[in-house]
Amino acid sequence: MAKSVCVVGSVALDNVETPSGNASNVLGGACSYFSVAASFFAPVNLVGVVGRDFPEAERRFLAGRGINVEGLEETDGETFRWHGRYHENMNVRDTIDVKLNVFESFRPRLPASYRGSEFVFLANIQPALQADVLSQLQAPEYVGADTMDYWIDSAPAELRALLAQVDLLSINDSEALMLAGESNVVRAARKILAMGPRHLIVKRGEYGALQFSSQEIFAVPAFPLENVVDPTGAGDSFAGGLFGSLAADGAVTSRSLRRATVYGTVVASFTVEDFGLGRLRSLERGEIDARYRQFMAITDFQS
Amino acid sequence: MAKSVCVVGSVALDNVETPSGNASNVLGGACSYFSVAASFFAPVNLVGVVGRDFPEAERRFLAGRGINVEGLEETDGETFRWHGRYHENMNVRDTIDVKLNVFESFRPRLPASYRGSEFVFLANIQPALQADVLSQLQAPEYVGADTMDYWIDSAPAELRALLAQVDLLSINDSEALMLAGESNVVRAARKILAMGPRHLIVKRGEYGALQFSSQEIFAVPAFPLENVVDPTGAGDSFAGGLFGSLAADGAVTSRSLRRATVYGTVVASFTVEDFGLGRLRSLERGEIDARYRQFMAITDFQS
Repeated sequence: MAKSVCVVGSVALDNVETPSGNASNVLGGACSYFSVAASFFAPVNLVGVVGRDFPEAERRFLAGRGINVEGLEETDGETFRWHGRYHENMNVRDTIDVKLNVFESFRPRLPASYRGSEFVFLANIQPALQADVLSQLQAPEYVGADTMDYWIDSAPAELRALLAQVDLLSINDSEALMLAGESNVVRAARKILAMGPRHLIVKRGEYGALQFSSQEIFAVPAFPLENVVDPTGAGDSFAGGLFGSLAADGAVTSRSLRRATVYGTVVASFTVEDFGLGRLRSLERGEIDARYRQFMAITDFQS
Repeated sequence: MAKSVCVVGSVALDNVETPSGNASNVLGGACSYFSVAASFFAPVNLVGVVGRDFPEAERRFLAGRGINVEGLEETDGETFRWHGRYHENMNVRDTIDVKLNVFESFRPRLPASYRGSEFVFLANIQPALQADVLSQLQAPEYVGADTMDYWIDSAPAELRALLAQVDLLSINDSEALMLAGESNVVRAARKILAMGPRHLIVKRGEYGALQFSSQEIFAVPAFPLENVVDPTGAGDSFAGGLFGSLAADGAVTSRSLRRATVYGTVVASFTVEDFGLGRLRSLERGEIDARYRQFMAITDFQS
């Protein structure tokens, strides 16, 4: 049986504007995208916070995907809200408005049933809170984390302390360069691996991803898509597919990590085909595997 | 025996400034990079023009690589000169100065011995001149072309007429979007294939390349490099390695084209490791094949 994945991060209600149209009040946040993506592969234990306005239907949707929502705390106040607008070039977006609401005072508390989770992903929140979540776990086998430019800049000591405790860091290319103080991504990767993580994934959006360890590099393109509707959540879906696949395999090897990176790539390619979690709501595991096989065909030059 | 590759384009003397340093008066131009890259795989017939200042040592260097320089015309005046400066982010460069000199009135004339060339690459020059070169060839088996934003904008009719006659177009991603009037590269590719070429390669610099036909897509990352010294000529070396590999194979199939695209990727990765053609001057075929095998290892997730 697959091992379980515990994820902590934001659960939000988003307003999104893209060249393809708009969506209001849709379920978002790193934790939501990650959980739903991972749920195609393995049991998920979700840790997050929402306000009294959080739709009961969304809680039921998550639970219906086999996601344990015992750790989705509901508290007085409103749910985290994000409003973003993408440019015609969807690699660029502006944040129009952010209301942290109940997320501002989020102090993750893991239910007792979560503490044995073997795989853990600390989505982008304050590094000290990420470390606090780690301390609530019994003996996680493999811990991943994301972070962002804001924490690299404003909480460098906490971030460094966290990095010494994680197995994998998954960040954007610009953030990798910023964290390492480098202009070359391979040199940046060496420096980041020296900070603690034994694996680093550098996300490059529509250009794919690079995966580094001290021993090897794995380079993978993105799945080429004709219709990108909304890029929101692509990176978190990528991480969710990746951790779900790892937990399903039950062990982290060079081979399982490469396969997991491709599963992450494939799940993210579905995410961006509709607004918010729209595409993942109707997605079936068979479609993921079919696109995985398609991806093998479009990247193969060795047969 | 390998078939031969005929290439027409610019031969220049460059001044280059990058974050790694400067180089003055170095051999450059699309035709030079293409020819040297292709010469590792197949006989090359070079068509270009230089002035009286062109160093005899450079002509001997090209000839010494087995490149036929009978078509490298020398004429009164000075050689084409380009002066460029790369930003700290080497994806961005400024052109400081361009002196077309003898290149301004270049009218390519193919020596009789070139007219049977099986593979042809029309590097970036005026589309009407590219078409004129085609008309001087007997029965080329496979014709490739490059172009740039300037011609897409200023000579659209000539470019369209050329596209109807070529088998492969190899251009940058921003130029592909511009040519098709699209914001998505996959949709752009469909439109460009409808203009004539049966194969399209979209170059994405350090992010790799996408190769399109009506039947399939091939996505390939770039070779991850720790030290990029000078990106000049990467795209032309890529095309040279690609056409050289195709000519060595002797036939264009889905399989030979994918292999050729990877050879192009590998040769380009050597080019950028030194200024100008510095790295390719000392490069040996065995190093190319060794890096090809490394590239197989860093992209493999199927074994």
